[in-house]
Amino acid sequence: MTLAIAHLGPPGTYAEQAAVFYLNWLAQTTGVAATLRPYPSIAQSLQAVAKGETQLAVVPVENSIEGSVTMTMDTLWLLDSLQIQLALVLPIAHTLISCATSLEQIKTVYSHPQALAQCQSWLGQFLPTVQIIPSNSTTEALQLLTQDLTAAAIASMRAAELYNLPILATGINDYPENCTRFWVTSQAQTEISPQKYSTTNTHTSLAFSLPANLPGALVKPLQIFAQREINLSRIESRPTKRSLGEYLFFMDLEADRNSPKMQSALAELSTYTEILKIFGSYSILPITTLKSVESID
Amino acid sequence: MTLAIAHLGPPGTYAEQAAVFYLNWLAQTTGVAATLRPYPSIAQSLQAVAKGETQLAVVPVENSIEGSVTMTMDTLWLLDSLQIQLALVLPIAHTLISCATSLEQIKTVYSHPQALAQCQSWLGQFLPTVQIIPSNSTTEALQLLTQDLTAAAIASMRAAELYNLPILATGINDYPENCTRFWVTSQAQTEISPQKYSTTNTHTSLAFSLPANLPGALVKPLQIFAQREINLSRIESRPTKRSLGEYLFFMDLEADRNSPKMQSALAELSTYTEILKIFGSYSILPITTLKSVESID
Repeated sequence: MTLAIAHLGPPGTYAEQAAVFYLNWLAQTTGVAATLRPYPSIAQSLQAVAKGETQLAVVPVENSIEGSVTMTMDTLWLLDSLQIQLALVLPIAHTLISCATSLEQIKTVYSHPQALAQCQSWLGQFLPTVQIIPSNSTTEALQLLTQDLTAAAIASMRAAELYNLPILATGINDYPENCTRFWVTSQAQTEISPQKYSTTNTHTSLAFSLPANLPGALVKPLQIFAQREINLSRIESRPTKRSLGEYLFFMDLEADRNSPKMQSALAELSTYTEILKIFGSYSILPITTLKSVESID
Repeated sequence: MTLAIAHLGPPGTYAEQAAVFYLNWLAQTTGVAATLRPYPSIAQSLQAVAKGETQLAVVPVENSIEGSVTMTMDTLWLLDSLQIQLALVLPIAHTLISCATSLEQIKTVYSHPQALAQCQSWLGQFLPTVQIIPSNSTTEALQLLTQDLTAAAIASMRAAELYNLPILATGINDYPENCTRFWVTSQAQTEISPQKYSTTNTHTSLAFSLPANLPGALVKPLQIFAQREINLSRIESRPTKRSLGEYLFFMDLEADRNSPKMQSALAELSTYTEILKIFGSYSILPITTLKSVESID
């Protein structure tokens, strides 16, 4: 069996880098072969799994500097049928890629809005007068660079290598401790991770809406987990899209959904929520060494 | 005295529309005259106030569909010295602006990422094959349209009128109940709102970090407000930018900071937080009728 893995393209994005790591890890731990398939947006990557075009998607969830990737959360809530298999944490090091020979020549800088935000102090210091132009991914603007010597793009070192483009500056992110967490998602009935992994799930992610916006409505859900000493590692609110001031709450909890304390917590939680969706239990794999940086697809 | 109000430009953005409303409201209720000053980003609008270039800034905080404007929250936390004077709620109705004579001619659609996200279903249905290009504001791409008949931009009806450009489709946002909340901010020592307003503040906004990520660490801050029957109308987490999994919490609470119950809540809260910043108390003004749609500056 060969699996297809959807990710934000074109090739060379951080999402592809995480997907390459996962593909190698999958081959090593299970012997399962996989191919990568780039999509033009995060939403389309997730929809590809829901429609059965691919078996898996690797999507960014959260960056340590810029926070949640809201597109991922909103799409997961809407699609309803996807489960998280694994989380991956990728260290992020941005480089400035350009065919210019010095910073003085650069007039425009392209990148994904999250990458631009992660380098805003550096840009303000070294390129204070350039025009900043957002793009759909870090790699989308790379093909412009050979035609326009006054243009630069912010992407990974791996992207510069893949597209054979010169790097003008490295480590330009404002905070050195920059990393992004990705989720590997599949359809609910697909069991991809090796059996030994599914017994060591350390995290459970879920989301819910509350029936009414009353004082203290959120206290009870938090107490349910606190009383059982289940740590809440992330809480995020998203609009219900019905009216301003109505929210969904997304939580990451440090326990397996099949553990007795989590089972009892989830049973109690469901009595307070309007809609409760559990996106699955999984473990977290740090991406420390990338053995292969070649393009796979 | 003439006040200067910073907002995201170029003229015709929703932020300018909110600023025009505020300018008129200020003239009517206090007799104070003001002028508008556009800035290329939300962060620069807020920095203009911190540096004293303008006395006020009108910045978006939250959209009912796309959620928080993280740039506003992160900049307010960093600048430290700004206070919220008033909140404004603006109904959002997006239009498709283009010199094309039919939808079939359009090949590219430009807009701010929030506006693009708010129209994604409409775009998928009526313009499924076009290239979507993010821009720094809804109005930034408008000057391109007269040169390129295959280009369109998503912006307000007011923007089409200001730039004298044709509207190809109206009400294209996926959810009709679309509105954006703005904050009017000033330096802490500036008292701009009329006295009668400052006695009817209904909301207080604050943010804090917690000393340790322990199970239940967030329960206590929520309980402090729940016990006093102070409704929490919004909670949002943002990364501390130190490491993945460390957060700041932003809260909007339905009480004046000078009320006895809020004073006692804030005193107790400060014993649990690491850093606590109070962004001020204010009331909410819905923008229902816009008497003047002319450009002011």
